[in-house]
Amino acid sequence: MRDTPVRAADTGAPAEEALRTLDAHWRAANYLSVGQLYLMENPLLTEPLRPEHIKPRLLGHWGTTPGLNLIHTHLNRVIKARSLDAICIWGPGHGGPAVVANSWLDGSYSETYPDVGRDAAGMARLFRQFSFPGGVPSHVAPEVPGSLHEGGELGYSLSHAYGAAFDNPGLLAACVIGDGEAETGPLAASWHSNKFLDPVHDGAVLPILHLNGYKIANPAVFARLPEDELEAYLRGCGHEPVFVGGNDPMTVHRALGEALDSALDRIALIQHEARTEGLRERPVWPLIVLRTPKGWTGPAEVDGLPVEDTWRAHQVPLPAVRENPEHLRQLEEWMRSYRPGELFGTDGRPRPLVLASVPEGERRLGANPHANGGLLLRDLPVPPLEGFAAEVAVERPGATSHEPTRVLGSLLAQVMTDTADRRDFRIVGADETESNRLEEVYESTGKAWQARTLEVDENLDQHGRVMEILSEHTCQGWLEGYLLTGRHGLFSSYEAFAHIVDSMVNQHVKWLRVTRRLPWRRPVASLNYLLTSHVWRQDHNGFSHQDPGFIDHILNKAPEVVRVYLPPDTNTLLSVTESVLGSRDHVNVVVAGKHACFDWLTLEQAREHCARGAGIWDWAGTEDGTAEPDVVLASAGDVPTQEVLAAVMLLREHLPELAVRVVNVVDLARLLPRQEHPHGMSGAHYDALFTTDKPVIFAYHGYPWLIHRLAYRRTGHSHLHVRGYKEFGATTTPFDMVVRNDLDRYRLVMDVIDRTPGLAVRAAAVRQTMEDTRLRHHSWIREHGNDLPEVLGWKWKPR
Amino acid sequence: MRDTPVRAADTGAPAEEALRTLDAHWRAANYLSVGQLYLMENPLLTEPLRPEHIKPRLLGHWGTTPGLNLIHTHLNRVIKARSLDAICIWGPGHGGPAVVANSWLDGSYSETYPDVGRDAAGMARLFRQFSFPGGVPSHVAPEVPGSLHEGGELGYSLSHAYGAAFDNPGLLAACVIGDGEAETGPLAASWHSNKFLDPVHDGAVLPILHLNGYKIANPAVFARLPEDELEAYLRGCGHEPVFVGGNDPMTVHRALGEALDSALDRIALIQHEARTEGLRERPVWPLIVLRTPKGWTGPAEVDGLPVEDTWRAHQVPLPAVRENPEHLRQLEEWMRSYRPGELFGTDGRPRPLVLASVPEGERRLGANPHANGGLLLRDLPVPPLEGFAAEVAVERPGATSHEPTRVLGSLLAQVMTDTADRRDFRIVGADETESNRLEEVYESTGKAWQARTLEVDENLDQHGRVMEILSEHTCQGWLEGYLLTGRHGLFSSYEAFAHIVDSMVNQHVKWLRVTRRLPWRRPVASLNYLLTSHVWRQDHNGFSHQDPGFIDHILNKAPEVVRVYLPPDTNTLLSVTESVLGSRDHVNVVVAGKHACFDWLTLEQAREHCARGAGIWDWAGTEDGTAEPDVVLASAGDVPTQEVLAAVMLLREHLPELAVRVVNVVDLARLLPRQEHPHGMSGAHYDALFTTDKPVIFAYHGYPWLIHRLAYRRTGHSHLHVRGYKEFGATTTPFDMVVRNDLDRYRLVMDVIDRTPGLAVRAAAVRQTMEDTRLRHHSWIREHGNDLPEVLGWKWKPR
Repeated sequence: MRDTPVRAADTGAPAEEALRTLDAHWRAANYLSVGQLYLMENPLLTEPLRPEHIKPRLLGHWGTTPGLNLIHTHLNRVIKARSLDAICIWGPGHGGPAVVANSWLDGSYSETYPDVGRDAAGMARLFRQFSFPGGVPSHVAPEVPGSLHEGGELGYSLSHAYGAAFDNPGLLAACVIGDGEAETGPLAASWHSNKFLDPVHDGAVLPILHLNGYKIANPAVFARLPEDELEAYLRGCGHEPVFVGGNDPMTVHRALGEALDSALDRIALIQHEARTEGLRERPVWPLIVLRTPKGWTGPAEVDGLPVEDTWRAHQVPLPAVRENPEHLRQLEEWMRSYRPGELFGTDGRPRPLVLASVPEGERRLGANPHANGGLLLRDLPVPPLEGFAAEVAVERPGATSHEPTRVLGSLLAQVMTDTADRRDFRIVGADETESNRLEEVYESTGKAWQARTLEVDENLDQHGRVMEILSEHTCQGWLEGYLLTGRHGLFSSYEAFAHIVDSMVNQHVKWLRVTRRLPWRRPVASLNYLLTSHVWRQDHNGFSHQDPGFIDHILNKAPEVVRVYLPPDTNTLLSVTESVLGSRDHVNVVVAGKHACFDWLTLEQAREHCARGAGIWDWAGTEDGTAEPDVVLASAGDVPTQEVLAAVMLLREHLPELAVRVVNVVDLARLLPRQEHPHGMSGAHYDALFTTDKPVIFAYHGYPWLIHRLAYRRTGHSHLHVRGYKEFGATTTPFDMVVRNDLDRYRLVMDVIDRTPGLAVRAAAVRQTMEDTRLRHHSWIREHGNDLPEVLGWKWKPR
Repeated sequence: MRDTPVRAADTGAPAEEALRTLDAHWRAANYLSVGQLYLMENPLLTEPLRPEHIKPRLLGHWGTTPGLNLIHTHLNRVIKARSLDAICIWGPGHGGPAVVANSWLDGSYSETYPDVGRDAAGMARLFRQFSFPGGVPSHVAPEVPGSLHEGGELGYSLSHAYGAAFDNPGLLAACVIGDGEAETGPLAASWHSNKFLDPVHDGAVLPILHLNGYKIANPAVFARLPEDELEAYLRGCGHEPVFVGGNDPMTVHRALGEALDSALDRIALIQHEARTEGLRERPVWPLIVLRTPKGWTGPAEVDGLPVEDTWRAHQVPLPAVRENPEHLRQLEEWMRSYRPGELFGTDGRPRPLVLASVPEGERRLGANPHANGGLLLRDLPVPPLEGFAAEVAVERPGATSHEPTRVLGSLLAQVMTDTADRRDFRIVGADETESNRLEEVYESTGKAWQARTLEVDENLDQHGRVMEILSEHTCQGWLEGYLLTGRHGLFSSYEAFAHIVDSMVNQHVKWLRVTRRLPWRRPVASLNYLLTSHVWRQDHNGFSHQDPGFIDHILNKAPEVVRVYLPPDTNTLLSVTESVLGSRDHVNVVVAGKHACFDWLTLEQAREHCARGAGIWDWAGTEDGTAEPDVVLASAGDVPTQEVLAAVMLLREHLPELAVRVVNVVDLARLLPRQEHPHGMSGAHYDALFTTDKPVIFAYHGYPWLIHRLAYRRTGHSHLHVRGYKEFGATTTPFDMVVRNDLDRYRLVMDVIDRTPGLAVRAAAVRQTMEDTRLRHHSWIREHGNDLPEVLGWKWKPR
């Protein structure tokens, strides 16, 4: 039998004495939270509060805080009583003060930040630094020990919790979902994650839906559902809900303690049965609905208006403490209502009563290594590429062709096989793994699936590690949770639909940007996107499926985190994949086609080319090396590279005296100056590749202006002319897509003629031939429904 | 009593004879769908099928098509029987062949495209053009009459349907939701839209959840839920579900007919009661769950593998008809199974049996004007700005300050009042209308809310027209549906969280790009974003709330559609708002602060400045007009403009001999060349503003490289130096945000010194003073928790 994260407790429900210690801990956490919001000095209220003790700017969110403190307090108890290995995802991200307070109480804060000790001086620092310039943010941010989820944007808590639980059979991931967050689409979709949770190999997720009634200025929808509708909804989501609520602390302590015990007993039973007797039906997992007042224990009324249990408790309930003596008085009364003397010694240390239920060592929520996944991360075993490249024996460029992602699928299958026991690699995608031609992975593992199966189904597997759900949000959330707890993964997506997770990846990049600067946060595996079924081959799905802008979005973000690769063929895709799977703390975007693509480079050449990131393809150009070329034809992306090579052949035929250089760019950030990106190249290097004064015709995979945005500081920038996607698309043929966007070989030849000094007159007839061919293309496809024969049959011919 | 869209039918359930006509219509639609997928010639199968009748590339999706044809057929019946004013949102966007076939059958296709007549020649064209180069897309695209929803990306059908129903009391918006789409976050969130639907002033939405079991390569989660879970989920979503399913056509016809009748009777009753007796409890609206085989009536088996009722039916079930005689035979058998001779005359016209249940005129789903909303659109009454600007009496620049969005709130309140009877204007937002300081609108209308209310609630209103739900996806979907049916609206959002709808706005821009080129599609009101609580004033919420990249995302899209405005003060915001509310077929992004902002321009000046989009602020600069300035200080955005003006004052003090020009840009696309964007300015105009060779220090609201991407073709580009947001942020002070990102006044002065020839030595001491002040800022805020007094107290002083 495997580890069971959750053991039935010996103790039954918490005794009254235990409830008293829980309440003390809760009061301490509340006191520390209010202190963080308001105080610069006088943390223990050893003297009456005066205006100068108060921060000049009051920034923070009280509303959600007492509820989070309550949950943390009770999680402490069950973790300690049952020796649980547990983390908690705090969905209401504004609850920074709560999680910081609890981490300070369990000692993990002071271990992480020794200058903030668990004593009076440390408490003073703790209060002052919160939401203070140069201090700590107001959210459950990366700076907070025990957190792997900031929650600032809302919606991702539950998918993060599931991601953490996958392949962590000994882990309990508790997850607090705010009633505001529950309204978001990503959260709503992620309820179905339980159809993908394997009770044998995965840990458990315990959702705690916290209904405190209000958002910033409105009631929350979930808080106003009739109880029967809410219960039906949660049962429909596949959960057995337990309802807890009230506004009398001791009553709620008792009920929440019982609810947690019953939920954890149920989880223990599910796991025990699945792990000893094998899986039968999908289990119905427990869930807790906790209904407590927003801003509970805070001021009931301020300036004559109700505050506690209303949306007015969302931020700082007493907004004018420094200026308004009545507010100051209310604050002092509020803080003293927690009876700090009972909770803290005169030295500021928490009294034993407060700490009675706090677990020890790595069991503490603030110190669990799963929340600092780099501590647990092992290198991913990526097999030698030679075995996969052997199939792609490139005798000479363009002699053969392969479907890049299909060959990649073989490699990923091997990774799946090699991690079969470790179970620390997963592939996620929105029902597109097979469409993206990675299906060889199914020879190693199936698709995770706990719902009903039929005879006709293929590759569904209760223990599978390919994750498919038609929700990019859920895929992204799962993978983030999985990576942040120290494992590896890949997200394969249609290129256009990566935009669905634009805002999620923003938050992940921000997380990584901050954690990279925190020495105690260990590096985690990079978030790797494989964008395929890309803009140039969405000819069959049409305009709605054509969008290369995710690259632009990513390259706006922190340069130390983001990387974009455009491998032009199969071996370069293999090489890039090896590199990104081994990298840490990055967000890597790899754009590669799934359709047959000529093989240009041997594995050795591919590795060298990828290591350089950009280089001259001598074999493709027509320069003789004795002088600078007349023109540079550059490309980034598989389809643009083919068009550039076809253009070179046309130029060889029609303008044989022209010295053409061919440059290929795999690593897009190479185009940036060195000081703008760690991969940026020096000016001298750039000039050596692109010249300083020759025309550069750049065929680019995406929006053409991105290349200008990267290269505008370069000496030769005024000679740079970029072709790319310009939002022209339809259901049409593959070649018509490039023609419509002026990226086709004929247009590139015309560009060379138009931009190379002295060619305009001399090559007028050639230009006309190109123009005529484009016109012929237009009428041909309308008649035959397919591309020109010379395009369909094109092959690279060496010089 | 108001119009009731849905009347109880006189006829009861459809008689057997009626079922026979429905089945004939369904078979005709299926036949026409298969024909579109496969045939180039021989549409009526007047001769045996030969390979040359088949398209060379088979592109399209059969799987969802028979189900959509079934639903369309049955909607025809109830529309006709009950004289309904109805539209249908077709969520499974790949079902293009179905909706095109039905539109051809009801005659609306031929009315829209006279070259595709409802006869044999027209049928031949209909088939050939589908998914053919130069023809029509494979989706329910803008080209399809009766559609207002492409569905290519999945997830937005239900929110579009609600958007269409709001303030359309006489309308029924049927909405087909695929079981794949149901897994997406946006769809999952949008179920709660029924808590916002007013049975008095709004129409009805009838969701039809179509479970055909499979996605591209997987079973659909919803199709594999146990029936009791599915029912619980839908009841939890506030619906009364009616289940229909089967694979015997006549049985399903009967059951679906009855289900539709019962659902429509229920809707009629709800509306009747609400409209005669007033609202009581939130009604429980009906919903139909339709379970039919994927690819129903298609080939059961192909090449020995099951196809019908499996995921293999997703695209073209017979993939090799041109090459494989057995596939060709199967196709012919399949098409003849619909008995085309019974359905179409030898002239290709549908026989009366087929058309017996098809409604007439504008009642046809292919011809309902609500699906071509520009036909119904009326100009929005925007009150004269003078009344609002009066409050902002600007005697001289910078003498007073206002909160721009608060003043805008007064304007919007008046618009709400002036449309109280017309009810064709709504504001949507994710619980931020008040936080964004637009709350004066609540004096005119409340927040739509049908759920439970408590005494403490404010501004909730069963008939309100401000829409708040914590789901940007739902907000966006509602507004798109509202606009596309011919109404007006505004989406106010925290700037960072606009990225949540990146992919949705992509699809909307694509939709508009296409409809602008279709003369029969009438222009609709623009989609207007007010992005406030922007990057520079998220100092209290911290790093997770700081992102100005939505602008970059929007400016990548079709230039004839997208516009971005950065009004620097209150009057320019009023002027820009007037302009965007009157515009058509655009996506307008307006970025404006909510915090107190100095008033720089009178209304008249603001209008002139906004009309120009960019201009020199003579009153702010120090040039004397006799020669070119030494340096240009440019800005776009409210905070950058203040920093530029503060920098000018510092330069006046420290370097009084320097001739400084101040340029302000409101309309960002003005920086683009004319040929790249309709608002782009000519080279001569640009040079007149920015000079061709003087240093330009540009303080920009967002990512600085965006300005380079817009201006890289300009003559003076190599002298352009841009400051903006570089992903540095935290919970800190407002001024610290600009300092961290090098956008502050002191850095701008240093930039002027560094970039202006001859200043480096002469102004070294000034530069040092600036540097010192920045250092002083750093230590000051860490000690005092607030900005430098000279920054907090700064005011513009004229020369």
